[in-house]
Amino acid sequence: MINVTIWNEGRHEKESESVAAVYPKGIHNCIADFLGTDEELNVRTAVLDDPDNGLPDDVLNSTDVLLWWGHMAHECVPDELVEKVYNRVMCGMGFIALHSAHFSKPFKRLMGTTCSLKWRDGDRERLWCINPSHPIAKGVPESFDIPVEEMYGERFDIPAPDETVFIGWFKGGEVFRSGNCWYRGLGKVFYFQPGHEENPTYYIPEVQKIIHNAVYWAAPEKIVGEIECPWVEAPEKHYDGPNK
Amino acid sequence: MINVTIWNEGRHEKESESVAAVYPKGIHNCIADFLGTDEELNVRTAVLDDPDNGLPDDVLNSTDVLLWWGHMAHECVPDELVEKVYNRVMCGMGFIALHSAHFSKPFKRLMGTTCSLKWRDGDRERLWCINPSHPIAKGVPESFDIPVEEMYGERFDIPAPDETVFIGWFKGGEVFRSGNCWYRGLGKVFYFQPGHEENPTYYIPEVQKIIHNAVYWAAPEKIVGEIECPWVEAPEKHYDGPNK
Amino acid sequence: MINVTIWNEGRHEKESESVAAVYPKGIHNCIADFLGTDEELNVRTAVLDDPDNGLPDDVLNSTDVLLWWGHMAHECVPDELVEKVYNRVMCGMGFIALHSAHFSKPFKRLMGTTCSLKWRDGDRERLWCINPSHPIAKGVPESFDIPVEEMYGERFDIPAPDETVFIGWFKGGEVFRSGNCWYRGLGKVFYFQPGHEENPTYYIPEVQKIIHNAVYWAAPEKIVGEIECPWVEAPEKHYDGPNK
Amino acid sequence: MINVTIWNEGRHEKESESVAAVYPKGIHNCIADFLGTDEELNVRTAVLDDPDNGLPDDVLNSTDVLLWWGHMAHECVPDELVEKVYNRVMCGMGFIALHSAHFSKPFKRLMGTTCSLKWRDGDRERLWCINPSHPIAKGVPESFDIPVEEMYGERFDIPAPDETVFIGWFKGGEVFRSGNCWYRGLGKVFYFQPGHEENPTYYIPEVQKIIHNAVYWAAPEKIVGEIECPWVEAPEKHYDGPNK
Repeated sequence: MINVTIWNEGRHEKESESVAAVYPKGIHNCIADFLGTDEELNVRTAVLDDPDNGLPDDVLNSTDVLLWWGHMAHECVPDELVEKVYNRVMCGMGFIALHSAHFSKPFKRLMGTTCSLKWRDGDRERLWCINPSHPIAKGVPESFDIPVEEMYGERFDIPAPDETVFIGWFKGGEVFRSGNCWYRGLGKVFYFQPGHEENPTYYIPEVQKIIHNAVYWAAPEKIVGEIECPWVEAPEKHYDGPNK
Repeated sequence: MINVTIWNEGRHEKESESVAAVYPKGIHNCIADFLGTDEELNVRTAVLDDPDNGLPDDVLNSTDVLLWWGHMAHECVPDELVEKVYNRVMCGMGFIALHSAHFSKPFKRLMGTTCSLKWRDGDRERLWCINPSHPIAKGVPESFDIPVEEMYGERFDIPAPDETVFIGWFKGGEVFRSGNCWYRGLGKVFYFQPGHEENPTYYIPEVQKIIHNAVYWAAPEKIVGEIECPWVEAPEKHYDGPNK
Repeated sequence: MINVTIWNEGRHEKESESVAAVYPKGIHNCIADFLGTDEELNVRTAVLDDPDNGLPDDVLNSTDVLLWWGHMAHECVPDELVEKVYNRVMCGMGFIALHSAHFSKPFKRLMGTTCSLKWRDGDRERLWCINPSHPIAKGVPESFDIPVEEMYGERFDIPAPDETVFIGWFKGGEVFRSGNCWYRGLGKVFYFQPGHEENPTYYIPEVQKIIHNAVYWAAPEKIVGEIECPWVEAPEKHYDGPNK
Repeated sequence: MINVTIWNEGRHEKESESVAAVYPKGIHNCIADFLGTDEELNVRTAVLDDPDNGLPDDVLNSTDVLLWWGHMAHECVPDELVEKVYNRVMCGMGFIALHSAHFSKPFKRLMGTTCSLKWRDGDRERLWCINPSHPIAKGVPESFDIPVEEMYGERFDIPAPDETVFIGWFKGGEVFRSGNCWYRGLGKVFYFQPGHEENPTYYIPEVQKIIHNAVYWAAPEKIVGEIECPWVEAPEKHYDGPNK
């Protein structure tokens, strides 16, 4: 059983009628709906405006994989919470950053770069899989179209991914590393570009498949309690200092 | 001409007679002495207890490659300065973290991991070059010994390096990825493990050669003013939205 | 069910009494014994001196993961068979090269480098895990000793591994990237350094655990029939050539 | 002074009037013309139908960087010559594979994968630089257009590049990793996708700039005589076998 928490900023859905029309229960519940059909996943949701911003210690400390969607209110996430999320990734938790979460505090904290990019709303995207034997590509066709999606274009200012799985093509003329994996601490991090709040992207079966696969990929074998920096005795028994 | 700034915490030298005996002018000046013989390098030094912690804006903003040595006073470096250093790396500045700077704020900020490790003072190290055609290995033998050095042992909690150049062997029984390169933003980052304050490591010719090479490797072609995240028009002239 | 074939040169065991004393049924059967206890694995063995060198088409074409041990008779493996092994890796088969198989024809074919190294028989090795959350490290301690093993030392002339899991420390003074992963074609490749024919290395529980884990890691989701290089129509429906 | 040899198959130019119209002196001489203006480069050309296929030992053994263009006659390159080219890359020579040389024998030998891809002639390409601080990107704009170029599309079956510098966008709907770097042996390998024989791609200033930069990037510090696999004495003086 994998404990999955889907965190959503949840503000656009409250403030914009057009967004609410696309995701009437919020982006988090749309994702919860399709992940929730898998009985191996224990799915919870949380939003920014919940108590403790949706992630009190008991929730975070029982999460194996955390999904994160944010956009207009990145700055409202307390730095203290960001450090807690970061520390849990160090200890093994998986972290999946969705779309505009490229600029979220936890993702930038984990990358150590600006995560900037080019953007333009309202383009057509075709996602190409360049790594078909990767676990996140399981059952995903070599390419599929997203009729309307926000264009995110290179240069995407990220550390070179440990694995790039998808590259996006945009009709307007750009390309983007759209699905990328990194190993950070004992945890795994996946970034997936599609998912603008105004577009019904999370209803697309291939997108759902990718996010589902990513949850399994990011799930840890175990999560440790703490990363230490210990003084250690020499494993060599007869060690007697450097000059012998 | 490459503008090099050697930043040193500089506290051990003031507080410990035995350290002062090894580096009477401070670690920074020992490094400045051997780098300064190269007329292509414009070398400055700075210490924590200088005004503005040694890095007022005009110094930082005219630095191409910043070397960083710190240990006992990591927490005394203001977060504001850390952000400035980080931002300049994003814009292209090279950053070389030396020894105990694995736990310095700027290095941890750039890595996005804990940078923890195992340690024990007073071991003998042999550095092996596993990447002999790398620019930082130029003129460096396939291995050389450091008679007494602090043991740093795996697991070193860093992102998988973009390039590993040196692996350290310790007599007491450990190994360590001792010379590692990362590309972050438009800047280059090198970490080099040898250099404990109580040992005369920075007087060793091979160590000097490696640091000298690293300065050239990390030097940027140019440093940009800012990393933006711009809205852009479609480069395709006849682009007229996603549905056409 | 994963179809595992353990291929062994099998010559040392026949020609040397001391080797036969360590592996009376051959290295392949020692490995088959510990893998065979897992009912999810369908384990077969093959040796160089079997008909078709142990790998007739029907065996190779029903193998999901191929383990390879060779040393004194690398040149006796026909080039034609090497191409068949290589092609099946391209199509998804896992390939695990053991110890002196660093110089086997299939491994060199897959690496595209010389795979040379330094060596000396009869040293003590300590294996350090530098990637504890990697699937191949599951259940493996952070380090363990091999009382007597052939020293393999850097520089190991391999492409930079996609993932390095283990680094070996040798009492005599060397280090080695001892457990390395590469993605090649649709297949996965793992190299594991311990396993000299004169030493009872394959009886060590940690070594068995690592090889067992590696079989699961290398097992493909599926194996395709062929890798093509197809002419394709433009996916864009209204595409009408470059000048419009 | 860098010794550059531009090897071209040179058959299309002889057999097709339309190709000869684009490159009247052959692709090799077009490239030699723009590289030859740099006095630091000692540029030679060679074609398949020259004696010794253009690469007698004295030429190959005095080449620092070898450029390779081939397409219709890959099979006419003798395996013996391929091994010589491969060996020289192992010893440090740079190798730049152009366009259809993705299927050339030396490139496939160095990659260890099929190097297959999708293709279609006659598309419009836009090259995006995703690594602007890379030496090969020096002075190259963030994107530029190639009015007519052969489409090469993913999945490109290559080992994950050590560095990806350019990604191509095609009007017809595909993407491609168009400029990739690998470190192999002591040598450096660059693959650059644009350059179909029917299109005047090598006259484009940005393309010339990239190839020029790549020559400098691939040029070795030195080229060694041979890669050995030596028995070595233990560097530890008091080493007396594994059991002490």
